[in-house]
Amino acid sequence: MTSTDLLQRWAAVRQHSLDLIAPLSAEDCCVQSMPDASPVKWHLAHTTWFFETFILEQYEQQFQAYHPAFRMLFNSYYNDIGDKHPRPQRGLLTRPAFDTMLDYRAQVDARIRRCISAMSATSEATAARLRQLLELGIQHEQQHHELMLTDIQHLLSCNPLSPALYVTTATAPASTPDPAPLKWISYEAALSETGYHGDGFCFDNETPRHRQFTEAFALADRLISNREYLEFITDGGYRDHRLWLAEGWDWIRTQQIRHPLYWLPEPDGSWSTFTLHGRQPLAPEQPVAHLSLFEAAAFACWCDARLPTEAEWEYAATSEQAALLHDLYGARWQWTSSAYAPYPGFAPAAGAVGEYNGKFMINQYVLRGSSAFTPAGHSRATYRNFFPASTRWQLTGLRLARSPHT
Amino acid sequence: MTSTDLLQRWAAVRQHSLDLIAPLSAEDCCVQSMPDASPVKWHLAHTTWFFETFILEQYEQQFQAYHPAFRMLFNSYYNDIGDKHPRPQRGLLTRPAFDTMLDYRAQVDARIRRCISAMSATSEATAARLRQLLELGIQHEQQHHELMLTDIQHLLSCNPLSPALYVTTATAPASTPDPAPLKWISYEAALSETGYHGDGFCFDNETPRHRQFTEAFALADRLISNREYLEFITDGGYRDHRLWLAEGWDWIRTQQIRHPLYWLPEPDGSWSTFTLHGRQPLAPEQPVAHLSLFEAAAFACWCDARLPTEAEWEYAATSEQAALLHDLYGARWQWTSSAYAPYPGFAPAAGAVGEYNGKFMINQYVLRGSSAFTPAGHSRATYRNFFPASTRWQLTGLRLARSPHT
Amino acid sequence: MTSTDLLQRWAAVRQHSLDLIAPLSAEDCCVQSMPDASPVKWHLAHTTWFFETFILEQYEQQFQAYHPAFRMLFNSYYNDIGDKHPRPQRGLLTRPAFDTMLDYRAQVDARIRRCISAMSATSEATAARLRQLLELGIQHEQQHHELMLTDIQHLLSCNPLSPALYVTTATAPASTPDPAPLKWISYEAALSETGYHGDGFCFDNETPRHRQFTEAFALADRLISNREYLEFITDGGYRDHRLWLAEGWDWIRTQQIRHPLYWLPEPDGSWSTFTLHGRQPLAPEQPVAHLSLFEAAAFACWCDARLPTEAEWEYAATSEQAALLHDLYGARWQWTSSAYAPYPGFAPAAGAVGEYNGKFMINQYVLRGSSAFTPAGHSRATYRNFFPASTRWQLTGLRLARSPHT
Amino acid sequence: MTSTDLLQRWAAVRQHSLDLIAPLSAEDCCVQSMPDASPVKWHLAHTTWFFETFILEQYEQQFQAYHPAFRMLFNSYYNDIGDKHPRPQRGLLTRPAFDTMLDYRAQVDARIRRCISAMSATSEATAARLRQLLELGIQHEQQHHELMLTDIQHLLSCNPLSPALYVTTATAPASTPDPAPLKWISYEAALSETGYHGDGFCFDNETPRHRQFTEAFALADRLISNREYLEFITDGGYRDHRLWLAEGWDWIRTQQIRHPLYWLPEPDGSWSTFTLHGRQPLAPEQPVAHLSLFEAAAFACWCDARLPTEAEWEYAATSEQAALLHDLYGARWQWTSSAYAPYPGFAPAAGAVGEYNGKFMINQYVLRGSSAFTPAGHSRATYRNFFPASTRWQLTGLRLARSPHT
Repeated sequence: MTSTDLLQRWAAVRQHSLDLIAPLSAEDCCVQSMPDASPVKWHLAHTTWFFETFILEQYEQQFQAYHPAFRMLFNSYYNDIGDKHPRPQRGLLTRPAFDTMLDYRAQVDARIRRCISAMSATSEATAARLRQLLELGIQHEQQHHELMLTDIQHLLSCNPLSPALYVTTATAPASTPDPAPLKWISYEAALSETGYHGDGFCFDNETPRHRQFTEAFALADRLISNREYLEFITDGGYRDHRLWLAEGWDWIRTQQIRHPLYWLPEPDGSWSTFTLHGRQPLAPEQPVAHLSLFEAAAFACWCDARLPTEAEWEYAATSEQAALLHDLYGARWQWTSSAYAPYPGFAPAAGAVGEYNGKFMINQYVLRGSSAFTPAGHSRATYRNFFPASTRWQLTGLRLARSPHT
Repeated sequence: MTSTDLLQRWAAVRQHSLDLIAPLSAEDCCVQSMPDASPVKWHLAHTTWFFETFILEQYEQQFQAYHPAFRMLFNSYYNDIGDKHPRPQRGLLTRPAFDTMLDYRAQVDARIRRCISAMSATSEATAARLRQLLELGIQHEQQHHELMLTDIQHLLSCNPLSPALYVTTATAPASTPDPAPLKWISYEAALSETGYHGDGFCFDNETPRHRQFTEAFALADRLISNREYLEFITDGGYRDHRLWLAEGWDWIRTQQIRHPLYWLPEPDGSWSTFTLHGRQPLAPEQPVAHLSLFEAAAFACWCDARLPTEAEWEYAATSEQAALLHDLYGARWQWTSSAYAPYPGFAPAAGAVGEYNGKFMINQYVLRGSSAFTPAGHSRATYRNFFPASTRWQLTGLRLARSPHT
Repeated sequence: MTSTDLLQRWAAVRQHSLDLIAPLSAEDCCVQSMPDASPVKWHLAHTTWFFETFILEQYEQQFQAYHPAFRMLFNSYYNDIGDKHPRPQRGLLTRPAFDTMLDYRAQVDARIRRCISAMSATSEATAARLRQLLELGIQHEQQHHELMLTDIQHLLSCNPLSPALYVTTATAPASTPDPAPLKWISYEAALSETGYHGDGFCFDNETPRHRQFTEAFALADRLISNREYLEFITDGGYRDHRLWLAEGWDWIRTQQIRHPLYWLPEPDGSWSTFTLHGRQPLAPEQPVAHLSLFEAAAFACWCDARLPTEAEWEYAATSEQAALLHDLYGARWQWTSSAYAPYPGFAPAAGAVGEYNGKFMINQYVLRGSSAFTPAGHSRATYRNFFPASTRWQLTGLRLARSPHT
Repeated sequence: MTSTDLLQRWAAVRQHSLDLIAPLSAEDCCVQSMPDASPVKWHLAHTTWFFETFILEQYEQQFQAYHPAFRMLFNSYYNDIGDKHPRPQRGLLTRPAFDTMLDYRAQVDARIRRCISAMSATSEATAARLRQLLELGIQHEQQHHELMLTDIQHLLSCNPLSPALYVTTATAPASTPDPAPLKWISYEAALSETGYHGDGFCFDNETPRHRQFTEAFALADRLISNREYLEFITDGGYRDHRLWLAEGWDWIRTQQIRHPLYWLPEPDGSWSTFTLHGRQPLAPEQPVAHLSLFEAAAFACWCDARLPTEAEWEYAATSEQAALLHDLYGARWQWTSSAYAPYPGFAPAAGAVGEYNGKFMINQYVLRGSSAFTPAGHSRATYRNFFPASTRWQLTGLRLARSPHT
């Protein structure tokens, strides 16, 4: 990729952050609805901080911080960078104002352009390193595009007025037919290679590419739909301890969970769900979303299946039969049964950017694919998303797997 | 008071709410920094809700709610009115927008004017009741004037940038001389009357007026200053268990409390404090503020004194020697050792407004006087403010008392 | 009282501690069921520690501690004595063994006897001080007699087997007739003296005797019965917010409280209650017990009455009409609406024993009278018991009061 | 194995439970020191409950429960069996008494013998099933042997007196030389079989045997010693965020963890540790114990190594070089980086015993080998122990691994 292409992509991604939040007020952008979610304003600042800290601070001549406090205020989790503003208090920052954040973005963007254009005058090694960091910043900001949408959805869902982020003329989504009956795609036992290879971008957690052996398995050709999940609910799925992991059973009883996040039983017995378009009737043919791993695993148990491992998922997604698998990307993140762990020989990058992934490899589970909120082109077959098992505010869904003899 | 006077006062109080928050952004007004504090936007709406619910809903012909959800959203604690939005979630209401709140205020105000002007056409009983409710609404809004200031101070104090609500040209308050040495004003044992009497407004908790007997006591002629409180700190006051109530001792150790709220030790050994003018050097001659009852009582113990009872305070404040007592009003609320309890024969008002005071008479302590944040004319000698013993974000200070033989 | 009489009383009280727990195993005596309650073994040790620390350590020649760690292990809350074993961990002390505690008691008792018998050889001042401390230790141990019973009742109540401490031949208490209809005893407004006077023992919180003025009031001639309290429940008392203090309403909803502690609804619609005799049918004619102040106040509100103040209670209990008041003592502690606070001129005793009472005068409410668990002769008209408003594991009941004009 | 051998083993295991706790009092056996640990009395009852519920209840003619409440009281986590006494309240069961538990054991044991001796009269299928259940009960009770020791160690560690379970004549363990320098044993990449095979007993989580591919790795020939771990502490290991998983870093800071569980810094700069022999000087040459996975991983990171996966561990432990690996068994459980997950094709056993393992396969990590507290013969190369990453009260230690290119 030429530097010009890279800069164009970078500019588009930066602009997209602003496009996404166009319908929001400064108030909407300021508030934090739970510790797991961040205010939109914080996302806007943190993605800018990333470029300021990892590029400008190191490569700009006579660097001066936009604001001396921002280094701490908008540091997410990089201990090497120094102090961090506590995550649960991100929503208390009514100052700097929203407009200041826009100015911060504009200023840093202009300085990044100048810094990059000075690339040719530098050594090729430096130019390459700058391109790497710019690419990492693009990918990082794309991850925050998705988080901005899930976080604002959560915030608006807490409002009894059920406000819509995007107002649609049609209050109900266009009716689409139910998906075809689920088919199982079978895979033979195989020794295969897994992990990223190629010249493009990948995160460090997708490497090193290595060999793995997968016993024979079958994977569902499509995601589980809302209608199918409703059958699980109707059949008493949330009341039968035998379907649940022990920790999941405790979790649904303690939290009094009876359905996926954002689902609401209506007085007439139907269901609605809270979306970025406000409260909407549940579309039965759509893939189910906002499941915890606990719920995904219980549903799988209910129909004598299981979750795939991430190795199975990647093997299938890179096999010749991949075209038979619907909605691998762009619909719902797909829970796997694999704990998030380093690949054999994994080594984090040097310096602060090395904190990007490795230190989170504990008590989290891998999701594969991508979701309707994921920016186009951001994901790939080797991409590893990860969240704790009880996470539900992401667009998390379910593709079943099974072993031949179960 | 004529109805015209009343309406003028009402209009001034309504306007003052807006004047107070002129320096704030919509973001500042939206966020809630802790469950005890409310967003400014909520204060603006709730005080309007009070007039809409208790006056318009009952006296306006063909009443229509401004918004059907506001009855629930901006109900503070009136169970008789129905559901309430949970207090800790007041800060999640990014919608309705700040501008909508201003419109809500304007619309309700216009309708209140029309409703009141229709007074003459109604029975005198109704007119009197309307005047009563309007007066109650005025007093209620004045209480929220003070709360808006304390709540925004708390929010801004959570911001590492230490932003100022009011920017002052002089960064340090004008230097004033230390107060004169503290003098004790003595009072003989006496049977006296206490509680409100007269034709003006009072809250139900100030009634009925009744008799009480007070043993001889002495009251300090002024408040304790920051300098005096610093001596207590320097002398190890926060490390000597003998000075503290048992619950206070646990509280300062668990919370690691070493000084009043908003105080900050500076690297050079001096102290600053966070105010509505931002972070400022501590003014030693000013009355100490932001004390819990625990700290006030420990300080009193340290100098062989005690807190006054509310009976003593009121007796002194209504005696002929009252003029000798400086800063009874307008500086700091003064902790008393009296638990907030009903006066003999107390009966709450009928209906929802009866929830105003009585049900809070448990595990709270009375403060007397008024503070620098209290609107002029709002308080009086019989006024009973009340907060839990650990409360510090109000302008709470300390006037000592002692018994003759201690 | 002669020293001989004092020693006889002391020996009887010491023996009574052992008599009370005769039906208990070492296991029963070791376990702590909640932080508020202590293991019986701890009570046995702590009451002994009191004599060892406050008498032997100061008056015994060549004092040697029974065990060097006991000073810390069995210190309840005396910061002046030094470190304390954390209260919630009292139940983890399986060692020293129960038998060691009995030996500790026997050894300390023998040394106390010798120490006291050496009294005559000392100055009269020392002898008087020793008598004072012995008396304080007696009173202290009597308080623990009551706590041992309430704490063991709580522990056994946590056991699904509902074991009885005392096995009775009759499983149901002898049927007694319902109490006579409640009568109101009226008292005129009066200036009176309150607080202890006389030559006997009293706790420091009962002093100094002082004057108080009480407006006219009426006091119920008897306690509220279980039958009456059941009517309150049946009438929806636990569902009507208007009857409750705000904090009490939150408390019953958060804790899902629907009836007094230890009450159990039976499948046939009747009620049983857990007692020291095991689970027993609720005796409707008995005075209701195990109420929080919140419940007591809600019941009072339900029948247009209120709780008495402690001043009213003491005034009535020392008036000429006292004989008209049934069950002032020996049945149930009676909640008052008075927060626990120092009397005018109160000063704690010097030294560690001064920590006995004063430092607890915050966020607690006074109960008057005494209960069926209180040792005979321990209480009196000026006695001030105190607990937080939500306390229920004590034998806490209810005597109504009212003002003439309510 | 003949039935006679089986019965002999069973009898020995049952007796060993009693031998282990011989030094304990009834008090020691009754108390629960934390929700993760159970009282010894509960262990004695629960292991007996296992035989009563899974064998007698199904195979004994005219079965009668020893006590109707025991089915619920001593059920650990089998939802299929019905209600369970809440785990954190196991320590409140002072009744049934300790002696009753011994009688419960004796009675059930006698009935089990009769039931088994009636084996020959039944079908071979039934006899086989009985043998299976007896074997499962033996293995289950052996697991509780280890838990009884770890749980009583934890309880005694909470006692400021640091009591010893086993009194030793020598207060310090015999001095042994430091272990030889650590050597790395290398393994080539290989496709191998993993999981249990053979005719002996195994738990369901060790099956099915399946193929896996392991990239080349090296494994340390011995465990990390206390001395080596001390170097990590001295080098600031607990203060360097770069060594820690993010969740581990939060954990040590929130919990203020500075060293392994039971370690105590002595005033002279040396270290002691709390053991079943009481407090003892730390033996530097012994393998380090009582590490969380977080600490084990941080130590590994500190010396540029990592934890092994369970696949690597098992591959090495079953390879021809296994004899080069010291302390695979009998010293410390060895943390792996593998989350506890089902093997491909895993299916839990039918019925309640199917709840033994599968439902715990979430948010736990596998430990391999066995410890000094594990009964002889209980473990094997395919054995999978598992605990949450923060667990420290087990005998958890550390064997390093590394990849060739790190």
